[in-house]
Amino acid sequence: MVEATIASGTSAKRLETAPTEFVESSGIRFAYRTVGTRSGTPLIMLQHFTGHMDSWDPAVVNALANDRPVIVFDNTGVGQSSGSTPDNVRQMAKDARRFISALGLTGVDLLGFSLGGFVAQQLAADYPDLVRRVVLVGTAARGGEEHLLAVLDEARSHMKAPDIRLPLFFTPSEASQAAGRAFLRRVSARQVDRDPESGDAISGPQAKALIGWCASKDPDNSILGRITQSVLVVCGSDDTMLPDRNAYFLFKHLRSAQLILYPDAGHGALFQYPERFVNHVTLFLTE
Amino acid sequence: MVEATIASGTSAKRLETAPTEFVESSGIRFAYRTVGTRSGTPLIMLQHFTGHMDSWDPAVVNALANDRPVIVFDNTGVGQSSGSTPDNVRQMAKDARRFISALGLTGVDLLGFSLGGFVAQQLAADYPDLVRRVVLVGTAARGGEEHLLAVLDEARSHMKAPDIRLPLFFTPSEASQAAGRAFLRRVSARQVDRDPESGDAISGPQAKALIGWCASKDPDNSILGRITQSVLVVCGSDDTMLPDRNAYFLFKHLRSAQLILYPDAGHGALFQYPERFVNHVTLFLTE
Repeated sequence: MVEATIASGTSAKRLETAPTEFVESSGIRFAYRTVGTRSGTPLIMLQHFTGHMDSWDPAVVNALANDRPVIVFDNTGVGQSSGSTPDNVRQMAKDARRFISALGLTGVDLLGFSLGGFVAQQLAADYPDLVRRVVLVGTAARGGEEHLLAVLDEARSHMKAPDIRLPLFFTPSEASQAAGRAFLRRVSARQVDRDPESGDAISGPQAKALIGWCASKDPDNSILGRITQSVLVVCGSDDTMLPDRNAYFLFKHLRSAQLILYPDAGHGALFQYPERFVNHVTLFLTE
Repeated sequence: MVEATIASGTSAKRLETAPTEFVESSGIRFAYRTVGTRSGTPLIMLQHFTGHMDSWDPAVVNALANDRPVIVFDNTGVGQSSGSTPDNVRQMAKDARRFISALGLTGVDLLGFSLGGFVAQQLAADYPDLVRRVVLVGTAARGGEEHLLAVLDEARSHMKAPDIRLPLFFTPSEASQAAGRAFLRRVSARQVDRDPESGDAISGPQAKALIGWCASKDPDNSILGRITQSVLVVCGSDDTMLPDRNAYFLFKHLRSAQLILYPDAGHGALFQYPERFVNHVTLFLTE
């Protein structure tokens, strides 16, 4: 088991109040925050389309951080990080690799959500010595099935919700929408030093990367074939953007994957059932 | 939450040494053993084709029994119980209901494996007030896909294994076969008062029940539709008798189900990863 120690910088108890720090590599100044214990294999969180450090659910991050350092960051061009957002997953993975190395970390676990799950797969395949275990949530293999723009358009056209994540991440059921509102309260708890919201300079290239990943077929599953690490795949029953068929496909084609699917849950399954999700991830990372 | 107390009889610490007890109902004398705490919602274990009380893995039963009473029993005609084995799932469920009521229990959780999973579905649908939560392992909805006889024939024709459960319950991989041998050591640990092995008087009607369940289509999913309880569905990636497509189908058609699939695992996924399985079931039963 890889063990690492966060040698420098700050490790806060809660994401809501964790200070933003910066590290530079190859001309990019990466913004990040560290929560949790100082020893143990750090868990690097890889974020969804247009998301940034303040898009992570404190209920998930803080509870995962009980047993390990959890590091959220803005990849190139996002939030408080410098540079231009790349328009392809391979470059995003290279940039994430630079960020991780700049922190002096030589072994990490990854949690990739949606677009971040694409980046996590690419990282795990390209850097097997760096990546110990991988959690993939609401995501797809290269060549997978995505309905990003259709679902975004649909959500925008019926936009009565106070936040687009209510229709995008949660199902129409009363229970799911209530969980969504609780999630929105949690992600808005941080009062100071919030990341700026993502504009077209981020959403444009990220949409191209996301659509390109799914449009470029991978008949030999060459990326999945190179992932030898243990993987936990999690998805909601009613994910409209990246349907749970993708999760089942990942499970069937990865060498060593567990699959967990949640009921009455959309793309944001991990935010709908934060306690259950944390329990499952904790079991996976510690077994 | 239903709470019950095992009012009478013995509750042992380990399945391997739990005494066999008997309770009578409608002319059937049911053999059973109780392991674990005396309070909490009892977990009733529903056994696979030709299995009996000594076919359960002590590693699974004993660990689950840390937090609740776990009750294994022989249904009508099996092991040390009297009567003739029924040839249909509905009657098996009725008999299980009689056994549970004869113990004076008014609220239970169910863990049904394979054929026992059919019985668990029927019980949960028919007796919603009795059944709180349900764990379904290596099983299928009515009308599901089964390869029981084909797989049995195949296993028998290549029979070099010391126990047919090695090829039937585990994959050909070295890791899975090693887990299988460890499982066989655990299930053979009990020295006294073991159940007799099942003969044709059990396997005949049980095979008819199993094949009949899968052969009788249920286009409206009438049984699944009546199951309102929370369900945890677990299956192995390479279950040759009741493939994991069945588990995914159950997940998609049950009202509130979580799905967990394990890698490199056959029909006996719960015995291959006893610790992981117990952790997942414990989370499900206690959340």
